[in-house]
Amino acid sequence: MLTQGGCPKTTLSIKDALEALEGRWKLLILFALSSGKKRFKQISKDVNGITDKILSKELKNLEANQLIKREVHDTFPPTVEYSITEHGMSLEKVMDELHFWGLKHRDKIMRE
Amino acid sequence: MLTQGGCPKTTLSIKDALEALEGRWKLLILFALSSGKKRFKQISKDVNGITDKILSKELKNLEANQLIKREVHDTFPPTVEYSITEHGMSLEKVMDELHFWGLKHRDKIMRE
Repeated sequence: MLTQGGCPKTTLSIKDALEALEGRWKLLILFALSSGKKRFKQISKDVNGITDKILSKELKNLEANQLIKREVHDTFPPTVEYSITEHGMSLEKVMDELHFWGLKHRDKIMRE
Repeated sequence: MLTQGGCPKTTLSIKDALEALEGRWKLLILFALSSGKKRFKQISKDVNGITDKILSKELKNLEANQLIKREVHDTFPPTVEYSITEHGMSLEKVMDELHFWGLKHRDKIMRE
């Protein structure tokens, strides 16, 4: 695909994807949720380096893009859990390829 | 991979990849260069919406990460061309998967 570069329609869909996933945090949050429902504090622990303010903003954005679901449970006090949606899970292959490329990239930068 | 979520090593390599590719522009610039060498003005035209200031910053960062190469030709006046490196081309599968997911995402958001 990349070797056929420059096709405007392909550029558009890549741009759509990058806009929905913008920044360094969204895919890491989705990855943390891919192992099951989690509460805010647990996500914050799993996604190393994120601040509570940014995590809160990113969770709202992911929910608006239908990539995660927010559930409020009627407990005392109320508890909130986040889970990944089917649409969020459809990013699996993107994550896989980023993972493989990230390994190669680290290796290359370390060697030189 | 995603379904085995939470593995710290996988998180690390995804984080490496996301840091090298941070923002919405870098992959679009690489995609524009995947069809051949280009001069600054041509890249600026192909990557719709980018400002010259940001393009200039992103090109420097991509060069530092060995994803593109900058060549100065001894002409009058001197001309500069940018090309994608082999390492940059190794992002092909990431681009493919982002393209496919971007199509699905647009379809989903439009329908609902």
